[in-house]
Amino acid sequence: MARKRQKRKSKIGLAPGTLLFTGQQKMEKAEFSVLIYNEDQVQEITPKNLEEVIHLIDTSKDTLWINIDGIHDESIIENICSKILVHKLTMEDILSVGQRPKIDEYENYIHIVLKMLMLNKDDEVEDEQLSFILHKNILISFQEKTGDVFEGVRKRILEGKGFIRKRGSDYLLYALVDSVVDHYFLILETLGEKIETLESELLVNPVESVLAKLHHLRRETLDIRRSVYPLREVISKFEKIDESILHPDVRVFIRDLYDHTIQVIETIEVLRESASGLLDLYMNSVSNKMNEIMKVLTIMASIFIPLTFIAGVYGMNFQYMPELEYRYGYFVVWGVMILVFVGMLIYFKQKKWL
Amino acid sequence: MARKRQKRKSKIGLAPGTLLFTGQQKMEKAEFSVLIYNEDQVQEITPKNLEEVIHLIDTSKDTLWINIDGIHDESIIENICSKILVHKLTMEDILSVGQRPKIDEYENYIHIVLKMLMLNKDDEVEDEQLSFILHKNILISFQEKTGDVFEGVRKRILEGKGFIRKRGSDYLLYALVDSVVDHYFLILETLGEKIETLESELLVNPVESVLAKLHHLRRETLDIRRSVYPLREVISKFEKIDESILHPDVRVFIRDLYDHTIQVIETIEVLRESASGLLDLYMNSVSNKMNEIMKVLTIMASIFIPLTFIAGVYGMNFQYMPELEYRYGYFVVWGVMILVFVGMLIYFKQKKWL
Amino acid sequence: MARKRQKRKSKIGLAPGTLLFTGQQKMEKAEFSVLIYNEDQVQEITPKNLEEVIHLIDTSKDTLWINIDGIHDESIIENICSKILVHKLTMEDILSVGQRPKIDEYENYIHIVLKMLMLNKDDEVEDEQLSFILHKNILISFQEKTGDVFEGVRKRILEGKGFIRKRGSDYLLYALVDSVVDHYFLILETLGEKIETLESELLVNPVESVLAKLHHLRRETLDIRRSVYPLREVISKFEKIDESILHPDVRVFIRDLYDHTIQVIETIEVLRESASGLLDLYMNSVSNKMNEIMKVLTIMASIFIPLTFIAGVYGMNFQYMPELEYRYGYFVVWGVMILVFVGMLIYFKQKKWL
Amino acid sequence: MARKRQKRKSKIGLAPGTLLFTGQQKMEKAEFSVLIYNEDQVQEITPKNLEEVIHLIDTSKDTLWINIDGIHDESIIENICSKILVHKLTMEDILSVGQRPKIDEYENYIHIVLKMLMLNKDDEVEDEQLSFILHKNILISFQEKTGDVFEGVRKRILEGKGFIRKRGSDYLLYALVDSVVDHYFLILETLGEKIETLESELLVNPVESVLAKLHHLRRETLDIRRSVYPLREVISKFEKIDESILHPDVRVFIRDLYDHTIQVIETIEVLRESASGLLDLYMNSVSNKMNEIMKVLTIMASIFIPLTFIAGVYGMNFQYMPELEYRYGYFVVWGVMILVFVGMLIYFKQKKWL
Amino acid sequence: MARKRQKRKSKIGLAPGTLLFTGQQKMEKAEFSVLIYNEDQVQEITPKNLEEVIHLIDTSKDTLWINIDGIHDESIIENICSKILVHKLTMEDILSVGQRPKIDEYENYIHIVLKMLMLNKDDEVEDEQLSFILHKNILISFQEKTGDVFEGVRKRILEGKGFIRKRGSDYLLYALVDSVVDHYFLILETLGEKIETLESELLVNPVESVLAKLHHLRRETLDIRRSVYPLREVISKFEKIDESILHPDVRVFIRDLYDHTIQVIETIEVLRESASGLLDLYMNSVSNKMNEIMKVLTIMASIFIPLTFIAGVYGMNFQYMPELEYRYGYFVVWGVMILVFVGMLIYFKQKKWL
Repeated sequence: MARKRQKRKSKIGLAPGTLLFTGQQKMEKAEFSVLIYNEDQVQEITPKNLEEVIHLIDTSKDTLWINIDGIHDESIIENICSKILVHKLTMEDILSVGQRPKIDEYENYIHIVLKMLMLNKDDEVEDEQLSFILHKNILISFQEKTGDVFEGVRKRILEGKGFIRKRGSDYLLYALVDSVVDHYFLILETLGEKIETLESELLVNPVESVLAKLHHLRRETLDIRRSVYPLREVISKFEKIDESILHPDVRVFIRDLYDHTIQVIETIEVLRESASGLLDLYMNSVSNKMNEIMKVLTIMASIFIPLTFIAGVYGMNFQYMPELEYRYGYFVVWGVMILVFVGMLIYFKQKKWL
Repeated sequence: MARKRQKRKSKIGLAPGTLLFTGQQKMEKAEFSVLIYNEDQVQEITPKNLEEVIHLIDTSKDTLWINIDGIHDESIIENICSKILVHKLTMEDILSVGQRPKIDEYENYIHIVLKMLMLNKDDEVEDEQLSFILHKNILISFQEKTGDVFEGVRKRILEGKGFIRKRGSDYLLYALVDSVVDHYFLILETLGEKIETLESELLVNPVESVLAKLHHLRRETLDIRRSVYPLREVISKFEKIDESILHPDVRVFIRDLYDHTIQVIETIEVLRESASGLLDLYMNSVSNKMNEIMKVLTIMASIFIPLTFIAGVYGMNFQYMPELEYRYGYFVVWGVMILVFVGMLIYFKQKKWL
Repeated sequence: MARKRQKRKSKIGLAPGTLLFTGQQKMEKAEFSVLIYNEDQVQEITPKNLEEVIHLIDTSKDTLWINIDGIHDESIIENICSKILVHKLTMEDILSVGQRPKIDEYENYIHIVLKMLMLNKDDEVEDEQLSFILHKNILISFQEKTGDVFEGVRKRILEGKGFIRKRGSDYLLYALVDSVVDHYFLILETLGEKIETLESELLVNPVESVLAKLHHLRRETLDIRRSVYPLREVISKFEKIDESILHPDVRVFIRDLYDHTIQVIETIEVLRESASGLLDLYMNSVSNKMNEIMKVLTIMASIFIPLTFIAGVYGMNFQYMPELEYRYGYFVVWGVMILVFVGMLIYFKQKKWL
Repeated sequence: MARKRQKRKSKIGLAPGTLLFTGQQKMEKAEFSVLIYNEDQVQEITPKNLEEVIHLIDTSKDTLWINIDGIHDESIIENICSKILVHKLTMEDILSVGQRPKIDEYENYIHIVLKMLMLNKDDEVEDEQLSFILHKNILISFQEKTGDVFEGVRKRILEGKGFIRKRGSDYLLYALVDSVVDHYFLILETLGEKIETLESELLVNPVESVLAKLHHLRRETLDIRRSVYPLREVISKFEKIDESILHPDVRVFIRDLYDHTIQVIETIEVLRESASGLLDLYMNSVSNKMNEIMKVLTIMASIFIPLTFIAGVYGMNFQYMPELEYRYGYFVVWGVMILVFVGMLIYFKQKKWL
Repeated sequence: MARKRQKRKSKIGLAPGTLLFTGQQKMEKAEFSVLIYNEDQVQEITPKNLEEVIHLIDTSKDTLWINIDGIHDESIIENICSKILVHKLTMEDILSVGQRPKIDEYENYIHIVLKMLMLNKDDEVEDEQLSFILHKNILISFQEKTGDVFEGVRKRILEGKGFIRKRGSDYLLYALVDSVVDHYFLILETLGEKIETLESELLVNPVESVLAKLHHLRRETLDIRRSVYPLREVISKFEKIDESILHPDVRVFIRDLYDHTIQVIETIEVLRESASGLLDLYMNSVSNKMNEIMKVLTIMASIFIPLTFIAGVYGMNFQYMPELEYRYGYFVVWGVMILVFVGMLIYFKQKKWL
């Protein structure tokens, strides 16, 4: 996960509610896409400019989903939000990409901030901040850049599958959040596979490079956890949103979504524990390998050191060394050395070091 | 425990409530088995096809237990569930084998998801998802494949033992869940025995293979924990189900079941701590063994290195080395070497390294 | 603590409430002992058979304490319990020795399950399941075998000490539970002493045998914790038992008992932390010892290896080696070797390895 | 973070509410600065002495912010506080620099204690105690010394930016606390950067100096955590302050502030986990390095020890050693030695130690 | 902290409420000291015997503080307590020195048990059990032995400082508990200083003796924690004591006291974490030192082992060894050896082991 540096520094000292984009600009120009639908018909529009969007907000009676890719232009956010009387603090939150997932209920709208997790082309996890504003029949979604996990929802709306077209903007909001959470499972599976790959690598050959990978994985898990944990509370509050905004029928679905969120969190915990277990395994493997090395050293040294000593003794140049003159002295010494050698081997065998 | 890969990926983008089996198909064709009973009589039926089952649901006034082995056929699930007005989300849950244990209360039925744990022929733990739908006098159980832990309950119904025949479908549901929980104890005992076996192996000879086994065991414990933990909440909610569904007399039994669940969870915790303790023990044994190896090396090297040095000195070829010409030089050197040797031994003895 | 294998296996598939003793039979025949008392008089009876006990239950108006040693005979338990309308599940709990401590309140009686901890003759902790049934003026206690911690209470009743005789069966129940909890302190003290002994052993000589002892101790602590932890909840619920069963005056005593229980639990936690601290201490001692060994090896090897090399050089047999012919070559070489030796010593001294 | 020694000792035995400054005097003389403003106008005053300040309190009808740098003079604190009927205990808290962040609500005022974190010129974190008293239209802030994080707020008031001028003293209090919390992010970012720098250092070369830095960082994190954790509770209580003191409009902002606080705390937790992960990484790197060293030693020793032995054997001086007289004995021995050498290399290659 | 062995054993089997002193008798004879005061006057009395104390209880209308040093004489405790209708269990608690800090509210009095921590002359922490009974205008304090932390309070009463004389016995109780808690800070500071001293020792030279000190410190911290933790709950309950006993004005002070208690507990936690961090630091230092030792060994051995081998080769006595006869053979060998030596140095330099 690319570590985004929150440009908090630049905000210090500014009034709360000051609109300032704190992320990195990821696209040249904000892009709009709009879906208007009711049970009978659906219309897909790609507005060229802000005015067109504002006009749609003013006129549409059907469910209206406005998606905005690119939130670096503060004025666009401000214009749209003001149109539906969004609080300054909400606008600020939409623009601050380092937000913690949360749900805020205001008199006339609800505001949800999420982290959308996606895999980039290097199979690394990337997060993107996602904000929703649900105001009557209008749902506005704000993304940092093009590319999202909503294709399935779009398709269902356009093709009229499921009962999404029969429901209003509250169900749409649920469906989008559900897509995000569903995508978490994909990410976690990928992570789980990485951990399993690492585990088999580890059991075969615990090289040092594995350690760096493991460290990287733990960090990735940590980052994901941070994005996902607050979701539990968010969905729990979402379920309790006032009936005037949330149709009771939709509530059943959110309860289901809540179960999914718990499952995501538990999966993350399992991944974390697996990663920890892997670290233990790695450290033990390393220590076992070291042991094996020590054993070889010990055996070699312990066997040959006394033998070398014996050879050294008879290499001394004393004028009077009786053994040297014995006829079979040399062979006797060889015999002694072989005895020592065999004795050592037996000793190590007994110790189970061989 | 075989790690089932949840086929979440294939579900992403689908509408919530879309029926799609996410597991691995474990049997060719779904099989039905039915028990109809009241206090006086009992009837065991093996319906050939779906229509027969539907007919039974329509006509039976007695307690009706329909068990379905094999949930890979979405249409069967949908047909049966629709018959008793089950919510789309419930059907989806039945088909999603990666479910977390849970209980859902709907207006006209309750839905329980559990993990049934069984030992396969390699003595490994296998889990299987189990769903119950309790609707008036009808209890439907959904299993992934043939083979379950309900033989005892079936026997009691058929032989009229206990007061199971005097009670309705709510007591039957309790009895089945109780069987599942009872079976957990069996699994945990087996795990406990494995850990004890490992412990004695460890104390005798801490070889590396033990480590892999231990890692495997910890993972198994982790998986079981994941299956069992949510049960606490499930049973706790089960006890509080509305009286219209759950007879007060049955509630006493569920309280007892709750106690068992707590006991299962505590046993798992004890197993986890035991496994951790074992890892400590292993690491300490390994480090002790290494110490012993180091000691041997140190003693051998420390004793013979100075001796070899002495021998080396008198192996030098200087023309003028007075000692070499002494009559007893050789023996004096031997004396010195023996002194050094003995001195070393005493030193190590003092250090308690011998 | 002897690890009792819960014979759960044999129970799987049986109806809940089926009476089956799950422990090991520890005595040949169940034995009864009865105390009947009021403020003025006390009577001690040892009934020969069940009928006598049943008769006492039927006729006694005073406080009646029936103690049963040996619960392996299901029929005895069933007969007595049925007499005072005890629920099937309670009977099952009495017979299942693997119970978790708990309190159950029924309409006409309360049922408490505890673990009584005692030291056996090898100074090891043994547990025994203890069940109480309090029904009006009757208290029945069930033990696995002869031998308990109630001598003090018996004495007080017989000698009329304290105000135990002035109170009813509720106070008696309190007094017995209090005895059990008081005895926990004794066990914990013994454990604490063992840990302290181990600690002094450790600081003197961290041999490997200490590790096995420590492992044993940790396990013992774990087992005790498991027996004692649920007690907190039990006593807390006990205090809140309905006034019709529990006289308000007795409640003050139970509050006191609750404080003791907390104290027991805290003591266990302290013991656990001490044991962990000891493990750290052990591992550090071992690693320190290893360090010391390594230092000796390093010093010996580092000093003598270069010296041996020098000796080796002048042991070469080249025809033309000018040094060998120098008059004082030998002594110069000795000088060099002594210099190297002293230099090494100084270096190690500086490094604080000597 | 400079560890301030709380001069608690000197306070022991004094009556509660005794006014005694417990910190280190950081400036010669307390300094006052005052801002008086309403929506239309603003006035900045630097009072020379206490009387002037008291006079302002007496007369001002507009929002009045009195900032006091330097709290070592007990009489000044007492005089000002008495003026607006502040409780003795509050005065004592203002003077005790070792306070835990807290909020106290009194009848006529609220009192908030915070830790202001700033980086000193060595890039180390320094904390300073900050107390606020909010009494009707008056806000008094007490700092230990000159220099704070309020420049942005001052500027906004003076330049009339944002709607700070349209709000009263409650919003001012919020704005100041918000500045402090905003500054925490800056501190945490700096810490995060330090950890990342350390991490890259570590991966390149795990030298010992890194360990000390890491220890320092963990301690800094610990200190910050201690300053920030209680804030969660403080802000949470702040939000619930009575409406008579806190305008409902301001409450929305405090809810936002609460979110920021949670985010700060979570960031700290992530930093802590990162630091722990780094320690693991370090220890593993060290142990890997050690392994590598051991391998080199083992390989060198294992290869040359047997070779040296062979050379030693033929260095013996026995009169009868047949091999010595063979024409090609010397070359045969070389051959054997090369064989052993190559054999060893192949063995180590197989073991993957090369 | 001296580990007091609770003489629980001797109490087992006794009736609850049996009065038996469980500590070690620390002084020969119990001593009384009494302060009687109202706003206008104060009187200090040292009663010779029990009767005098009883008389004071009977007659005094002013605030009466009776302090008793020495609680080994059960009859004294019983006499005094009976006088003001104290429950048997309270008397038992006063005499049991192993009590956990707690507060009990009875109809006519409140009872507080605390641990007073003091440094003995060896700078070690010693604890002493302290019980208070507050009954109307009378406060009785029980200490194990002479010497306490109340000098400041006595002085304030005698000299009429603060408003202690204007308040009743409830404020006195608060003031005494406050003294105890204030003293905890002193103890914790001392501990903190010890830890810092240890830390600097560690960074300079991680000798083994540090480990024992660290172990001792951790244990001390553990003991203190055990004494202080329950205080949080005690003070929290104290604050909620009925108004008839506790004047609302005093409640504000207890709230302040509660803050102090939290601060004490947090300080303990920080100390514990510091001690753990120190252990990590120690273990890392040790392992670093070991690494350094290993490096020296490896370098020495790796350099000289091949050199010695070369020397060994030319020490062989083969009749035909062409090199030996070369004119400059000896010098060529020296050259080779120097090359090997330098090559090794460069290799180790590259590996950063030098």
